[in-house]
Amino acid sequence: MPHAPALALSRRHQAVRSEMTARNLDALVVTSLPNILYLTNFSGTAAIVVATMEALHFVTDFRYITAVEGARGTATECPNLELIVADGSYDATLARLLASLPGRVGFESVHLTVKRYNWLTRTLAAAGGTACELVPTEGLVERQRVRKDPYEVATLREAARRLSAVARAVFGQIHHGMTERELALAIDWQIRQAGFARPAFETIVASGPNAALPHAQPGERRLIEGDLVVLDFGGVYDSYCVDLTRTVSIGPPSSRGREVYAAVLEAHDRAIASAGPSISRFAIDAVARDTLAQHGLGEAFGHGTGHGLGIEVHEDPRITRRRPDVDTGDEEIEPGMVFTIEPGAYLPGWGGVRIEDDVLVTDTGVEVLTDATTDLLEI
Amino acid sequence: MPHAPALALSRRHQAVRSEMTARNLDALVVTSLPNILYLTNFSGTAAIVVATMEALHFVTDFRYITAVEGARGTATECPNLELIVADGSYDATLARLLASLPGRVGFESVHLTVKRYNWLTRTLAAAGGTACELVPTEGLVERQRVRKDPYEVATLREAARRLSAVARAVFGQIHHGMTERELALAIDWQIRQAGFARPAFETIVASGPNAALPHAQPGERRLIEGDLVVLDFGGVYDSYCVDLTRTVSIGPPSSRGREVYAAVLEAHDRAIASAGPSISRFAIDAVARDTLAQHGLGEAFGHGTGHGLGIEVHEDPRITRRRPDVDTGDEEIEPGMVFTIEPGAYLPGWGGVRIEDDVLVTDTGVEVLTDATTDLLEI
Repeated sequence: MPHAPALALSRRHQAVRSEMTARNLDALVVTSLPNILYLTNFSGTAAIVVATMEALHFVTDFRYITAVEGARGTATECPNLELIVADGSYDATLARLLASLPGRVGFESVHLTVKRYNWLTRTLAAAGGTACELVPTEGLVERQRVRKDPYEVATLREAARRLSAVARAVFGQIHHGMTERELALAIDWQIRQAGFARPAFETIVASGPNAALPHAQPGERRLIEGDLVVLDFGGVYDSYCVDLTRTVSIGPPSSRGREVYAAVLEAHDRAIASAGPSISRFAIDAVARDTLAQHGLGEAFGHGTGHGLGIEVHEDPRITRRRPDVDTGDEEIEPGMVFTIEPGAYLPGWGGVRIEDDVLVTDTGVEVLTDATTDLLEI
Repeated sequence: MPHAPALALSRRHQAVRSEMTARNLDALVVTSLPNILYLTNFSGTAAIVVATMEALHFVTDFRYITAVEGARGTATECPNLELIVADGSYDATLARLLASLPGRVGFESVHLTVKRYNWLTRTLAAAGGTACELVPTEGLVERQRVRKDPYEVATLREAARRLSAVARAVFGQIHHGMTERELALAIDWQIRQAGFARPAFETIVASGPNAALPHAQPGERRLIEGDLVVLDFGGVYDSYCVDLTRTVSIGPPSSRGREVYAAVLEAHDRAIASAGPSISRFAIDAVARDTLAQHGLGEAFGHGTGHGLGIEVHEDPRITRRRPDVDTGDEEIEPGMVFTIEPGAYLPGWGGVRIEDDVLVTDTGVEVLTDATTDLLEI
């Protein structure tokens, strides 16, 4: 369970309710678990929230009742939470609740399947009477989550501090001849030892030619002299995700290795230096991309420059190229946003380099939350 | 990447195609990643498959091209796979592909969000012409996955063997005074050492009164004399999930502890003994439930008796109570199905017991795949 204070939860509810008012909604059905966690501190695997102007109707099953009741009266209790124990299926319980709520009821179209939607509309229609109108919404809660509140900033700062310590501990454990898999295991062990609940994603250890695959899975390849090795790992701390990548050299790097590393590091540093309030997310990506292109590595950088961090390991804002067909307006980053900066260069057959840090947008620029060295380490 | 042989993949495609024919579908859009893995051996995090009678159109992005191309010509290559690199978004690529496929095109209503569906239908309508008709389907691929093929049985058997070894190793590491969290870390370490890619879910270590919560998260509570401790853990081996629970006693158990343990073990043993071909999944659940009720623990067993195992850690068949409103016909289990048997008893304020094994349905009964002792261990 995360520990957002009741007051922080209350502010989040307020923000969601004013957005509901703006969209003329009487209620909002929240089916996304990360959104539910954000609104209630609930970190179980099954629940539905129906937010009205007065209360948060919270549907869960018997497994979680004790946990929810246990939060009552504590400093992290969710305000105005009305507990409803699922009777039959979750959606049957939801349908009964909605039958008593006339008006316009938003639902999260990104987090409800066609099957569930069809079942709900059929069931509500069969119930007849003053049934509510279901209205698709998008990103209503997510939009609030993009700017982190002080509790979240403190959590992410602490998480990033711990993940940086993991990186330093890992540097001391890498040695010639160990396999990618062994190194990945050592990283995951350090992540858990550092107080993380779990890795935020499957740890990447990609050595030598394998490093040309941005999402390589650690295998039985042994680290040998001359390898560049990409280490990309993250942790979930108090329900919040942080993410870090370093590339190290086994023995002295080749001159090509030094060049590519220097180019990626320059892209990383310049992207970070460029970031701050009222800068477009596309502009930050362009800084990294243009820097790599100047070094002849434009084609070698196939992914986005970064992604938001929070309850999910990939959330908004996305620091990417502008897609002409989809991205219309400029989207400026704002204070309180937390995201990665992680340019890379991937050369099939040769290998790759990626360097990633996590940053928090401040009133004047960004604060780099992770703090492991970005010098090219020789193991 | 899992390693199903090309012939096994081919049989799976055939089974899906004959189901498509039965439903009068010309194509099927597969958006569920576990279903995609089942059909193609692809274990990445982003892809869409469109199965036609002739080919599997496989949409992925640049990150995975090398991995997919690398399987070409190997014994585990996916037959008739037509690689399409996503250009723009995945769904934009899918829409272009569908525009060239007239006819009835099924989609997985359980694995497509309302947002994506609305976007697709709008986009296809705007494209005009001989646009296909989108038809919701349910469980078309999942139904094939329920009965495991020989490759899957071999994988699950090996995975269960390794998880049993993990249990035995863990028994030797439990000691008085360690915290739940430390024990969970030790379990996860053993899981990784045993060759699993990762734990199949967040490991549960619930001690003393915490064991009354079936889904407790490991915390800072230390194991003390007189505790019963529920250990529930699983691993993903070659993309397949196995799951095991044991309850141990720190020091000699109380007489109440012995009684509850004996009742749960009796429910476990009788449920396993009752299982076999042409037995209803509800009947197996009833055996466990009735046994506990005879010991006055009917109310203490709030969850289902078991769940299917495979590419997902919770899949069909569900060994549960019959829900009168939803479950119409009897659903018999069949040879090749693999599921857990995991009765439990949870007494708020006192604690709990759960005992779980994984079974494979054979032609005559079940084979228990996991093989750690079910005696009540005293640590």
